[in-house]
Parts: sequence; C-alpha cells; structure tokens
Amino acid sequence: MTTPVILVLEADPPPRLGRLAGRAVVRYADRRTLAGLLPGADVLLVWDFTSDAVREAWPGDGPRPRWVHTASAGVDRLLCPELAASPTVVTNARGVFELPIAEYVAGLVLAFAKDLPRTLELQRLHRWSHRETRGLAGTRAVVVGAGPVGREIMRLLDALGVQVALVGRTARRTIHGVEDLDRLAAGADWVIGAAPLTDATRGMFDSRFFGLLQPSAHFVNVGRGALTVEEDLAEALRRRWIAGAALDVFQEEPLGSRSPLWEVPRLLVSPHMSGDTAGWRDRLGAQFVSMYELWSAGEPLPNVVDIRRGYVPSTDIPD
Amino acid sequence: MTTPVILVLEADPPPRLGRLAGRAVVRYADRRTLAGLLPGADVLLVWDFTSDAVREAWPGDGPRPRWVHTASAGVDRLLCPELAASPTVVTNARGVFELPIAEYVAGLVLAFAKDLPRTLELQRLHRWSHRETRGLAGTRAVVVGAGPVGREIMRLLDALGVQVALVGRTARRTIHGVEDLDRLAAGADWVIGAAPLTDATRGMFDSRFFGLLQPSAHFVNVGRGALTVEEDLAEALRRRWIAGAALDVFQEEPLGSRSPLWEVPRLLVSPHMSGDTAGWRDRLGAQFVSMYELWSAGEPLPNVVDIRRGYVPSTDIPD
Repeated sequence: MTTPVILVLEADPPPRLGRLAGRAVVRYADRRTLAGLLPGADVLLVWDFTSDAVREAWPGDGPRPRWVHTASAGVDRLLCPELAASPTVVTNARGVFELPIAEYVAGLVLAFAKDLPRTLELQRLHRWSHRETRGLAGTRAVVVGAGPVGREIMRLLDALGVQVALVGRTARRTIHGVEDLDRLAAGADWVIGAAPLTDATRGMFDSRFFGLLQPSAHFVNVGRGALTVEEDLAEALRRRWIAGAALDVFQEEPLGSRSPLWEVPRLLVSPHMSGDTAGWRDRLGAQFVSMYELWSAGEPLPNVVDIRRGYVPSTDIPD
Repeated sequence: MTTPVILVLEADPPPRLGRLAGRAVVRYADRRTLAGLLPGADVLLVWDFTSDAVREAWPGDGPRPRWVHTASAGVDRLLCPELAASPTVVTNARGVFELPIAEYVAGLVLAFAKDLPRTLELQRLHRWSHRETRGLAGTRAVVVGAGPVGREIMRLLDALGVQVALVGRTARRTIHGVEDLDRLAAGADWVIGAAPLTDATRGMFDSRFFGLLQPSAHFVNVGRGALTVEEDLAEALRRRWIAGAALDVFQEEPLGSRSPLWEVPRLLVSPHMSGDTAGWRDRLGAQFVSMYELWSAGEPLPNVVDIRRGYVPSTDIPD
C-alpha cells in the first residue's frame, strides 16, 4: 500500500502534523496550486477555512480526495454541487469551538446587561456616572441554530439563570422549529445567531426580523456573517428598534477600515475570534491527527457533514 | 401604644414606605438634622448609605433608636464604638445585592478573558486585529470574603466552570481561612475582593499582595474601596505585575475627575454600581417594609449584623 497524500490548504504547516511522519506524505497548496494538486491527494485538509479555493478548484478534472476535513465548524465556504454529488466524505472541527464561543456569547450578553461598553466610554471622559444595570437571571434568550455551538450557548446561558429557547430547522424534543422563531424573538431579551449558513438561513436577520424585537433587545451574531443583512441591522440600531448588537462575523472578512459598521451606534464589532482561545490551532491539529488515524485504519470518521444540508445532522449529536 | 417613629436618613422618600401609613410616623433627616432627631426615633432607616452622618451623630445625648437598618450590604460607614456598645439591633440589606454583584463580577471576568476592553478600543480605531482569547472554564479564582456576596460570586463562577476557592476570616467546612490566602492567590487567574471592611481587611490588597500574583492574573474589587491600597494597585498594573484589574469601589466616592485612577493602564473603573440592577431601590424599600412588620409584631429580625465584628456572622447564613 502506498503512503497516503495529505494536501493542506495553507501556507504554513499546521501544528501536530509531525506526528504523522512516515504515515502520510504532506503537501501544501494555495489558491493558485490547489486545482493542479487535488488529483494526487487522498485527503484534503482545509486549514485556511476563510478561503473559497476549494469551491473554485473542486469542479475540475481528475480524481478527487476521498476525505476533506475543514478546521472550522462551518462548511459553507467549501461546499459546491460537484462536492455534494461526489462520494467524498467531508468532516468538520466539531468539539473545538463550542465552549469558547459559548463563553464569548455569555461575555457579550453580560457586557450588555451590565452596560460595560458605556462604562469604558465614561472612564475615558473621567465621568463618574452611576446607572442602574440589568439583572441577567430570569431574562429570555433565543438561540438560533441547534447544532453543537447553539446547544453549548444554551447550556452556559442556562447556567447563568437565563431562560433559553433553542431554534433549529425542524422541531424535535427540546428544540423549537423555525416556525416558532418570530413568536419567541418577539419576547426575547437576547437573540443569538449561531446557525450554519445555508440557502435557508442566508439573510434571515433582516429588517423584518429586527422589527419584531423588543426595543430593549440585543442581537449577537457568532454564526456566519451572511446570516445578517448588515445594513438592516445598522438601520435597526440607528432607529433604536433594538438596544444593541454585537457582530463577530461579517459578510466580508476582514472588515475594511472604511466599513460603516465600525461606527454604528450601539454595535460592538469584533474580528471573528469568538472561538479562538489560546491553543486553538494546536487543538485543531491534534483533532485532525486523531481523525487521520481512524481514517487510515479504515474506521468510521466522526463529525461527518451532511453536504446536501450543509451541516452535521443533529441526529449524530447526542442530546 | 403610640405609633412608632421611623427616621429616614435621606432627602427623598424611599419607595414602598407608603405601605406603612397609619402604622408608623415617618420623618426625614439629613446630616445636619440627624443628631437632633435621633432621640425621638424608634427606628433609623439609613437609606443614604454613603453618608458618615450616623457615625458622627450617634455618640450624642438622649435616647437612641432600638433598631437601625441600612439599605446596603456593608455597615462600615455607620459603625462606631457607641453603637457597638448599645443594645440597638443593626440589620442590613442581605438578599438584595448578592446576585447582581455576582453577575457583575462574572461579566468583568469574562470581559477580561475575552479581551473585550481592547476590542472596543480597536473598534474605535477601525482596526481588525484578530487575537487569541482565554478560555474561562478550568481557570482558578479566589474570592476573598465568605459572606453572602462572596458565596454568590462563587456559585456563579462555578457555573461557568471556574475552580473557585472562597476565603473567609476563619476556615470552616468549604471555606478557607485567611492563612491560606497567599498560597491560593499565587495560583489564581482571578482574585475577587468581596470582603466587609473591618480593621482586619482594611488595606489588605497592597503591594505585598499584588506581588504574590501571577503576571496573567486579574484583580476585581466589589467589596469596599478601602480594602485596596489604590496606589499599590496602580503601581502593580503599571509594572505589569498583574495583567489587569477592575474597581467598582474606591477609597473616596464619587471618584473625582482628576483622580489618576481613571488613566491607569489595564484598570477598569466603574461607579459603585455592581449591585444596582433596575428595581433595586424598590426591592430595598420592600425589604425594609417587611422587616418593619416583623419588628412591630415583636418577631425576631433577619440580617442582624454582629456590630463588634462588622458583618452578619456566617453562622446565620445557611450553606
């Protein structure tokens, strides 16, 4: 048996791949070289998950890797009809990002409840200005997206005493279907976007949606930028339809320095980092290595993405 | 029996006292009139708990109220030797501030872990600057002060996966004695000040203490300002002995606009508001009314402060 070839989409070697010395040939590709290298690869590791290169290169000629792993939770940037129709197995980095993202969301929600951005602003002005803040326990959150990230956000907000409703594509057990979203959002203090980006979710947070919310509500998006119609959110904040928002993800990343979003009142902008706690690259590398060991032993892989739906089906996720 | 006289130290009537119409005569005092009105009062309600007027007026001549209630957790501002030696019962507002303060601390700790102050700074500069942040779960906190506030902080940080050690005056069951503080603080990621202000705790957070901490540690004080030697904390932050700090309480409040504390690097300054969530004044008024009903019926009062020690003894607090 010949040694399998792992093709890595990334300029710099990811950590931990040295463990595969002698058990795999590792090659590196970029957007320019990917199409030419794909036919000779058994495995594609999409380490630079911000690139559209896979979607561009995949439809070409020749054999294709039997397994594609992406070092991300979302798979929207690499899916294309040709990949969806192929027998290739696609896996994601489930397990690495959930807790960091949930902590980040809890931090944003508490920052809003306790008026922390305003406190920092007043500190710059040397102004002692006592305010009443909000209690968090007993408030209501709607988490849109019932995958592992959404569930972990629910768990952590619940631990802080928040009443959380989880909304997924279809209702099942403790999860609401999307048909309940408008009603739940209308009574929520916090609306959290944590859904995968699919045809059904693209642009779902728009003027119609923000118009449903309470004036005291806050919106947080840690899913994918394109879930939100950014100009609609900016308008909802300027018109005070809602009290505040935080975006960690954007339609275009990185956000350019001239983007109007930096200056939208009551909007907190952060650079797509909610899941990236110290050591995250190492954890992603270690996860790929252990998945490679299963794959090369002919064992079934975890974290298999349903490439027609665009996410890991929840039936694979224990409740 | 004559109708009891409640003397309120505050210019404006507190909420809910209308419920006592016909059951009490309510009079109002300020710093100037307090000494003259004390002899005619059965009950003193210290609503303006930022005032030193009680400590100044109490030692005078004439009868004294049999019950003093303060609308605060701390009682340091009203205690004096003459009050401590008197048969007067002193009660505090236990039950109103614990959860809000614990949420506030959780918000500060998450803000530090997720580098939120820097994110807001970078947003002002329109700078997309991805950083790795800290995971909160599994980090270690030391909460100094084992009263109801400290315990609630412990409960909430524990719910977020933090390993919390609670330090009180003396070791008992799950509480460490102060003799363990240096050792625990040296290994902590988060040190939270939530102790009452007494002769034993005044100035306990000083250069010696900050020198024990890890360079990655953060310090938060929500107890009383005088627990911290402010210039020592400023120096520890400037010299990067510790990574950051937040003060919600100060030696002098309000903090003057010329205080150097506003500008100390990596110090977050907030205006003594950690416990003050919307409706807090109403809750304080309702608490006093229900305590008054017990008192006038001759029932024992809850929240009785040990006026020699300066706080509600923990033996009165269920674990």
